[in-house]
Amino acid sequence: MAYVLSEMTWPQVKEAMETVKLALLPIGAHEQHGPHLHESCDAVLAERIARKIADELHPSVLVAPTIPFGMSMHHIHFPGTITLRAETLLQVLEDIIWSLKQHGLENFLIVNSHGGNQSLLSVASAQISQELQVNVTYTKTTASAKESIKKHVHSDLFGHSCEREVSESLYVAPEIVREDHLAKGEIQEGPWRWLRPGQAIQGFYYYDEMTKNGAIGNAPAGSYEAGREIVEEAVKNTAEAARKIFDLNPNFISRN
Amino acid sequence: MAYVLSEMTWPQVKEAMETVKLALLPIGAHEQHGPHLHESCDAVLAERIARKIADELHPSVLVAPTIPFGMSMHHIHFPGTITLRAETLLQVLEDIIWSLKQHGLENFLIVNSHGGNQSLLSVASAQISQELQVNVTYTKTTASAKESIKKHVHSDLFGHSCEREVSESLYVAPEIVREDHLAKGEIQEGPWRWLRPGQAIQGFYYYDEMTKNGAIGNAPAGSYEAGREIVEEAVKNTAEAARKIFDLNPNFISRN
Amino acid sequence: MAYVLSEMTWPQVKEAMETVKLALLPIGAHEQHGPHLHESCDAVLAERIARKIADELHPSVLVAPTIPFGMSMHHIHFPGTITLRAETLLQVLEDIIWSLKQHGLENFLIVNSHGGNQSLLSVASAQISQELQVNVTYTKTTASAKESIKKHVHSDLFGHSCEREVSESLYVAPEIVREDHLAKGEIQEGPWRWLRPGQAIQGFYYYDEMTKNGAIGNAPAGSYEAGREIVEEAVKNTAEAARKIFDLNPNFISRN
Amino acid sequence: MAYVLSEMTWPQVKEAMETVKLALLPIGAHEQHGPHLHESCDAVLAERIARKIADELHPSVLVAPTIPFGMSMHHIHFPGTITLRAETLLQVLEDIIWSLKQHGLENFLIVNSHGGNQSLLSVASAQISQELQVNVTYTKTTASAKESIKKHVHSDLFGHSCEREVSESLYVAPEIVREDHLAKGEIQEGPWRWLRPGQAIQGFYYYDEMTKNGAIGNAPAGSYEAGREIVEEAVKNTAEAARKIFDLNPNFISRN
Amino acid sequence: MAYVLSEMTWPQVKEAMETVKLALLPIGAHEQHGPHLHESCDAVLAERIARKIADELHPSVLVAPTIPFGMSMHHIHFPGTITLRAETLLQVLEDIIWSLKQHGLENFLIVNSHGGNQSLLSVASAQISQELQVNVTYTKTTASAKESIKKHVHSDLFGHSCEREVSESLYVAPEIVREDHLAKGEIQEGPWRWLRPGQAIQGFYYYDEMTKNGAIGNAPAGSYEAGREIVEEAVKNTAEAARKIFDLNPNFISRN
Amino acid sequence: MAYVLSEMTWPQVKEAMETVKLALLPIGAHEQHGPHLHESCDAVLAERIARKIADELHPSVLVAPTIPFGMSMHHIHFPGTITLRAETLLQVLEDIIWSLKQHGLENFLIVNSHGGNQSLLSVASAQISQELQVNVTYTKTTASAKESIKKHVHSDLFGHSCEREVSESLYVAPEIVREDHLAKGEIQEGPWRWLRPGQAIQGFYYYDEMTKNGAIGNAPAGSYEAGREIVEEAVKNTAEAARKIFDLNPNFISRN
Repeated sequence: MAYVLSEMTWPQVKEAMETVKLALLPIGAHEQHGPHLHESCDAVLAERIARKIADELHPSVLVAPTIPFGMSMHHIHFPGTITLRAETLLQVLEDIIWSLKQHGLENFLIVNSHGGNQSLLSVASAQISQELQVNVTYTKTTASAKESIKKHVHSDLFGHSCEREVSESLYVAPEIVREDHLAKGEIQEGPWRWLRPGQAIQGFYYYDEMTKNGAIGNAPAGSYEAGREIVEEAVKNTAEAARKIFDLNPNFISRN
Repeated sequence: MAYVLSEMTWPQVKEAMETVKLALLPIGAHEQHGPHLHESCDAVLAERIARKIADELHPSVLVAPTIPFGMSMHHIHFPGTITLRAETLLQVLEDIIWSLKQHGLENFLIVNSHGGNQSLLSVASAQISQELQVNVTYTKTTASAKESIKKHVHSDLFGHSCEREVSESLYVAPEIVREDHLAKGEIQEGPWRWLRPGQAIQGFYYYDEMTKNGAIGNAPAGSYEAGREIVEEAVKNTAEAARKIFDLNPNFISRN
Repeated sequence: MAYVLSEMTWPQVKEAMETVKLALLPIGAHEQHGPHLHESCDAVLAERIARKIADELHPSVLVAPTIPFGMSMHHIHFPGTITLRAETLLQVLEDIIWSLKQHGLENFLIVNSHGGNQSLLSVASAQISQELQVNVTYTKTTASAKESIKKHVHSDLFGHSCEREVSESLYVAPEIVREDHLAKGEIQEGPWRWLRPGQAIQGFYYYDEMTKNGAIGNAPAGSYEAGREIVEEAVKNTAEAARKIFDLNPNFISRN
Repeated sequence: MAYVLSEMTWPQVKEAMETVKLALLPIGAHEQHGPHLHESCDAVLAERIARKIADELHPSVLVAPTIPFGMSMHHIHFPGTITLRAETLLQVLEDIIWSLKQHGLENFLIVNSHGGNQSLLSVASAQISQELQVNVTYTKTTASAKESIKKHVHSDLFGHSCEREVSESLYVAPEIVREDHLAKGEIQEGPWRWLRPGQAIQGFYYYDEMTKNGAIGNAPAGSYEAGREIVEEAVKNTAEAARKIFDLNPNFISRN
Repeated sequence: MAYVLSEMTWPQVKEAMETVKLALLPIGAHEQHGPHLHESCDAVLAERIARKIADELHPSVLVAPTIPFGMSMHHIHFPGTITLRAETLLQVLEDIIWSLKQHGLENFLIVNSHGGNQSLLSVASAQISQELQVNVTYTKTTASAKESIKKHVHSDLFGHSCEREVSESLYVAPEIVREDHLAKGEIQEGPWRWLRPGQAIQGFYYYDEMTKNGAIGNAPAGSYEAGREIVEEAVKNTAEAARKIFDLNPNFISRN
Repeated sequence: MAYVLSEMTWPQVKEAMETVKLALLPIGAHEQHGPHLHESCDAVLAERIARKIADELHPSVLVAPTIPFGMSMHHIHFPGTITLRAETLLQVLEDIIWSLKQHGLENFLIVNSHGGNQSLLSVASAQISQELQVNVTYTKTTASAKESIKKHVHSDLFGHSCEREVSESLYVAPEIVREDHLAKGEIQEGPWRWLRPGQAIQGFYYYDEMTKNGAIGNAPAGSYEAGREIVEEAVKNTAEAARKIFDLNPNFISRN
């Protein structure tokens, strides 16, 4: 039901623009996800969840094509990982948003499922909003599903190829899960522990300093049901927030 | 059968790298394709055809994730079109190739289905090959299918949303064709005609100066069978060329 | 007692380098801080607190010159605010770190007192660490003083020109406080509230959409004593973390 | 007779601008041209042929100064070759066109005699036309002389320091030909053959992989007469095309 | 008395802007200054002297925060030196000036005390003036004190950590002078002598090729009194010039 | 007699490289030169004088192709002027020097005849020398002819389209002088006078603020004889300096 730009012809886009006020920009990453998830995991999740948000907000939003790459330097030592430089990704976002602005869009919500992109997106939100005179916002796909995560995710260390991500995948994209290879993170000690979010000091470390198999958390504990609850809670919360921020109703007035 | 990076886990990639000597990089565009093809047409075709080439060359190649955007300034006046600047796309390619080089790859074949990308790819091939000390090559997906195109494509002006592209789509990605909206190009005269390839002078023009509906050629004349012949001829030719250029056999020696 | 690069001659630096293993890079911002704090507030606090950390870790660290500008687009509508673009600040950091690397330094801790810089610093940490083959980390000056903040800061909304920042200033730099102008934030409603950290969606907004006088929180509640507790707790935590991460003892081994 | 910017004073330029509607921008390269042509060959030919086109179109056009460098990475292994990076050349073109726009020009024809520049010029045409809101076109100096080339050029492989280029030089710039050193290309086999234009796959190779002496084709077969026919046919065709595209008559209307 | 941006709150800046017509931008460097001056010498002098100029021109000018880094590649072999690349510094200046323009400023005087910055500032003056449509000028702090310098400075080779710079420091910033380490430059011969300003050929050389201790001239000959005369003459001359150029009186008319 | 790269074939360059130790890089500008000199004046003079220097130093030097553009923003209001941005010119120089380094050159002397380029060249000398690990120096063509200039040039204000430049042109390139249009500068007052070199404050101004006809000085006073003396003195001085700096004799040792 949602307007998905990559599956539309231009006359369909033209017609959709009569009601569309917001573009969702899914962004993922192409990086190792342990022995049990495809490397495209983040891109696939971002796209599937963006479509769900778009379903909720139809016909006020459209889903732009997914950016399949992100900032993945942390994972570069694992085979298959691809990373963009910060300036490159900033410019990709600016070019896409510039293009969509030509068609009349001025509100953007980047739907991101890769934690490693969040900082760059925060920077992009400020800079592109100002330079292109548009409203650029961003969301981490399921970060707002606080209740379901509390209920279903019990690892001390989670957030990558863990039970949360496996659950989400089982619900929205089971084809990317190798269920017969689900494995807990093989954590090893190192300075990374003192550089994690919430610590006094933060900073870059390679993921292979932290985990031998590239996963953290407890992937085997993931389930379709947990995924369903997490994703649906997040979609509901994000859609609700979008409605308020962008005033997705007939008497919408742009902030610009 | 092909190695498709986006559908593999890192241990699978690691194993594949024992035989892989060449990475295929599909690139498309996100731009209007008339009333009858999805705007993602080029990205979809590039990916599907790259997989076919990879099938032919298995286990010597892997398919990297598709770049869904290209240089589409010509189409920017049609709703939904997204374009990257030249420097942006050059940098995206360099970042991807740099990343894959970290995993041991030094031979690259960009599989491109958007004519508007060819010039940039030629530039990228020279610059990135030299700067990263790798072999970057590129192919236009079905340009090498000269016999089948001669047999099946009869429009004076073709190459975008025409019978050739519709045929290819019907064969490898029928879901992107709106068969009930197939329409000939609504050509109108203008300076564009004197700026086409092969003319004494070439140069930029907007596609809407040339065609009202965004298509050229005779889309309704497209067919699955024509698509099958065109694509298969091209895949065969490209795979054959890749075998020779990259010496895809056990006694391979890198040119570097 | 601390090694402060800007107050040393080169022979003194040369001698100090016999024990120094870590450079502290203070960074602030030049932006409005309501009616009661100088616009240089963040730069002053970063420098003073970095010196305190350096005192703790002497003779293993030196303090580099303070970067007096940051990313302050949010405040640009208030007179006097100066902001750098993301690419500019990234390049400034890279140039400084490149320079210090020439003198033998390979460990860096950016001491930042401006929340608006954190995302860029996260990006810089990853990118510069990899490109210059060094260890770049960062800390938000007093973010680690969780207990003291809990004890002394009671506003729902705080973090800029609030009781916490006023307290810190009264303790380490009383000359930047206009005590006779201390004022609570004059908050006004708007979409900013749905874009704050922790919300489902985040994004850029101008500070004047949120507060008429540029402050948030309850500045008049700030005190020297609260500042002393917050700063000292943070300094202690940060120094302790630095000791562990950079192994600041005689048998230090670089991670590179 | 032609307006040649480098040979005019500013009052002469001012007067010329009363009739001038189009600027010709000659661009060459500085690269090896085998044992028989000066390394400046392309720059010299571009300038001489641009002047001939300008003679034809006088007083509607002026010739801008020649850009003596191009993209010549292919030739870098031969002594004396100089190459610009793609971004550099793109920026040079943008700066020149920006400057000329300040004087009232909005139509540009880049007159290029180096095949290796064509892709970059195609990219530049699209990007600069859009960004500076002007019309940027380009021509390969004698590519439009199809009949004369068919008549006079008989090598399978030609296009660099071959009989065509020698002929053109003998006609418009005999001083750059070392007639006593004319030599056929000393071709050697290699992967380059599968990477040539028209092949299924294209890509970068170094010229010294293809030819020992830096030439291809049959330079000794070149002649003044062949050069005269080729150049004059091309000049006629290019001038004719320019007249149509830029409507070089009194009732000219800009496309912008 | 002067308006010093870093020591003001935004309401104070707002009020000051009623009379302010010119921003002073102090810029220094962070580089070795021999055994007797702190590495921050140039930044400190630039700021102190800018304040004196601002005192003279009050209330027509304000002093922006000091840029503590400059182009110091010449000194990079001496411990502690930090240098920015040319593009970085150009961009920093542009960002600062862009920001101040948002607050209504259109006239800028960069107050520079580092000779190695002068060329970049000349470039910046032309480029930023044009691109941001403002008036950017620059002054070398005490270069205009021709009479006092003639009277007090007698070394053949001076200009860095010499008697002039020591004198200036003793007058405006005695805390940066290590008086017990004052030493003449330990000059050694080399090609640098033929590359100095005023020679037929100029060019880059490392400072350690010229002087073993990083100083030139006769630092021990410096004095507070010489510093006072030099600085005061320069301040008077610069203020006078600024008054004329920027018409710092009530009937001011912008040149833009 | 001199080695002039643009007039050589690659085998000739190869042979020349046996004795060549230094490359001369002529750079000019394309800008208005009043009513009496061609806009290419600086490029022509730079090339002609570089050849004379090369004659003196044969066979130790070669002359690279002339860069016909420079930084000419000051003149942009006069018809025909073309200017490069600072970053563009810096990059052009870097690309040329990188290329020549591939052929074994590591010493460079930029021969510049446009005052407006000097600052950028100073910046380029430092940055490119360091980044490419080569020796980049520069000379203003006739600035070293101090005696002849004192003897022949008597205007208070000179340096552009004045008697000095006309004299030089009459001697080395009479074809660029319109002798029947020789005119004194039509000077008008303005803030430019307080921004000239040697003043307390310097900065950008447009040339048309200073002179109505684009010239300064007393062009009609120029003569072939004055030109001969000025140019020959400068060539002699520059060659002599180059011999010393680059040790242009058989026992040459690189500084790198």
